[in-house]
Amino acid sequence: MLSDFSKTFGDIIKSDGGKIIFVVLDGLGGIPYYGGKTELEAAKTPNLDRLAKESAKGLHIPVEFGVTPGSGPSHLALFGYDPVKNIIKRGIMEALGIGITPSTDEIVARGNFAKCSEDDGKIKVLDRRAGRISTEINKNLCSILSEKIKMIEDVEVKFYPVKEHRVCVSLKGKGLSDEIGDTDPQKEGEYIRRPQILGEDTYEKRRTADIVEKLTFKIFEVLRSNEYAQCILLRGFSKSPDIESFEKRWKLKALAIATYPMYRGIAKILGMDVAELDGENIDSQIRALKNNFEKYDFFYFHFKKTDSRGEDGDFEGKVKAIEEFDSIIPEILSLNPEVLAITGDHSSPSALAGHSFHPVPIMIWSKRAFKDGSGRFTERDCRYGSLGLIYAVHIMPLLLAHAGRLEKFGA
Amino acid sequence: MLSDFSKTFGDIIKSDGGKIIFVVLDGLGGIPYYGGKTELEAAKTPNLDRLAKESAKGLHIPVEFGVTPGSGPSHLALFGYDPVKNIIKRGIMEALGIGITPSTDEIVARGNFAKCSEDDGKIKVLDRRAGRISTEINKNLCSILSEKIKMIEDVEVKFYPVKEHRVCVSLKGKGLSDEIGDTDPQKEGEYIRRPQILGEDTYEKRRTADIVEKLTFKIFEVLRSNEYAQCILLRGFSKSPDIESFEKRWKLKALAIATYPMYRGIAKILGMDVAELDGENIDSQIRALKNNFEKYDFFYFHFKKTDSRGEDGDFEGKVKAIEEFDSIIPEILSLNPEVLAITGDHSSPSALAGHSFHPVPIMIWSKRAFKDGSGRFTERDCRYGSLGLIYAVHIMPLLLAHAGRLEKFGA
Repeated sequence: MLSDFSKTFGDIIKSDGGKIIFVVLDGLGGIPYYGGKTELEAAKTPNLDRLAKESAKGLHIPVEFGVTPGSGPSHLALFGYDPVKNIIKRGIMEALGIGITPSTDEIVARGNFAKCSEDDGKIKVLDRRAGRISTEINKNLCSILSEKIKMIEDVEVKFYPVKEHRVCVSLKGKGLSDEIGDTDPQKEGEYIRRPQILGEDTYEKRRTADIVEKLTFKIFEVLRSNEYAQCILLRGFSKSPDIESFEKRWKLKALAIATYPMYRGIAKILGMDVAELDGENIDSQIRALKNNFEKYDFFYFHFKKTDSRGEDGDFEGKVKAIEEFDSIIPEILSLNPEVLAITGDHSSPSALAGHSFHPVPIMIWSKRAFKDGSGRFTERDCRYGSLGLIYAVHIMPLLLAHAGRLEKFGA
Repeated sequence: MLSDFSKTFGDIIKSDGGKIIFVVLDGLGGIPYYGGKTELEAAKTPNLDRLAKESAKGLHIPVEFGVTPGSGPSHLALFGYDPVKNIIKRGIMEALGIGITPSTDEIVARGNFAKCSEDDGKIKVLDRRAGRISTEINKNLCSILSEKIKMIEDVEVKFYPVKEHRVCVSLKGKGLSDEIGDTDPQKEGEYIRRPQILGEDTYEKRRTADIVEKLTFKIFEVLRSNEYAQCILLRGFSKSPDIESFEKRWKLKALAIATYPMYRGIAKILGMDVAELDGENIDSQIRALKNNFEKYDFFYFHFKKTDSRGEDGDFEGKVKAIEEFDSIIPEILSLNPEVLAITGDHSSPSALAGHSFHPVPIMIWSKRAFKDGSGRFTERDCRYGSLGLIYAVHIMPLLLAHAGRLEKFGA
């Protein structure tokens, strides 16, 4: 019944106001498991307990009821972008995961090293995963290719090893399109394909398909006598999304403090600065937060372990990860932010050993918050919190409101 | 994410059914403050307490999560109008506030009396607020102008004093447009401007700009030797919105019972009748409610004090205002309405001394209500109420439903 307010926010966001620390405990939410408790319920969290009483609590739906999101959509929603309209394609997510942030004139594709042979001028696929070669051999193949193939026409080509037989290939140049099909025929005994044109036929798409076809033959030419793999099968050609910057959208100068490449990459795509860390642990993250606190308005603080342990089905491990985060809360509070918000990007219940669709606890601590006065920071207690059950895309406006960064709407 | 039902209501609203009394306690919502209580929690409210058990309770979001609304958008939402698509412009709100309800062929602008001098045929601004003249002098200047300037060409002109140097100017006539810029240069030492054309250039806009320019020179001609102010700087030209009447939308003959001009004006814009009151207190309002109870289907009963005290940061005063309203509830119930709904248009926590974005308590008392059976009428208890957390635009359909005024949808 209500019209889309998102455009209206542009008119009421102030360019000043308090500092916001936004903590994302990856995969935070759980469901009851050991002894009927969730990980948050089982954890000993004196600091979260205290904050829970002084904060407004609630639950958020990352994307939509029943939908289990990947890290891309869930983070876009947390940062106030419609996760259905703004898609970071799978190839881009794969690139981000290995530390590459593609530029706007770059296309990336996921690939497999494959065993292949020539058959009447075509390349036939014998083993789609090249016998699952080791990551070491993969790295070696990539460095051979990187040496021999630097350009196809005026397009710059790069090869990045992933794990085992998996590889990431980047094409960088003007006038390329990612609306082309895969070269991977998905079946052994078939030929590597020239990419199909997806949708309307355009010059850009045909040119990109030409480049990819030439690249494929060039790879085969270089590797044809290699003992492990002779070609690369490509799929999921992707460009970075054309997405409004976080700073433009919310008038916040933002710093991402994350140890994992994928989250650093998502932040870069949104135009956030990404903190250099002196280690891969939470203490390094706290140091980065302290050292940069004066320079930014908004801090995206990402903690990965909660998700990793949840995905492993490791209940005790996830409990410990929560307790580890709890212990550093006093250091965060010592910075005296205007707003401290703590939530997850989605649920990863140990009981399910993976991402899930369950709502995620959130709490907002601020002098403008409705201090709930009771309950812990758990899935169950957050249900009764003053924020209610909200969509994740509503979180950014709430954070701005709690930081005193929104003008009154209308007279 | 649900499809827009609003157009469908037209088909299922009955033209008969029970009477609805809709009480709007302005700025009702609060956040914990003194001793960790909100104003509603601190107030002694035996009548609200009783109703809370016999009613369906909930919380509403006036416009959108995180958005602090002005009185215009929040009231439009309460009356079931999308507050983003239907905007009452600032100039109109100012006019309503001093008791003028502009007609559809009328344009109003906010103005300042200013000290000015002639400079080569142009009017130079020396003091944008004319030394903040008293309201008395303002009234005097307005009566001089009202006497000397009644028409510019075929456009009727009126001058209304506001406070200190502030004035409201109305232009009434056919073919005027409010899409023109300000005459106020916003800077001393600069010249009063001819209004710019905003958007596409049209005959109506150019003509309105001509009238405004002529008016400005005429004002200067009348006041040029006055000792306090010599001209008026105009800004925010506004027309009343083109908005469907409340009666057409909801098939309810409605009476507004409000003491403050702004709320009486909003009701007039929606085509409601506005009760004549024999005083400015709540007893006069109750008398008007009783005297008109047979004649209408819907009563908008507005109580201002809760907001005024909240905006003053006066916790005890807001508590007392709530208690004052509580005391008259038996008189309202004695009329035996089909539905009595009590809510606020937005929150005005004393702790923040102003409007805020926090959800607002609502309760609906009716034989069709899910009687919650527990809790008081407070922000915290309303969270657990059977209405849940809803957008304000959902309230009108709920009131109709509770009054038995909606047909079943579909077979």
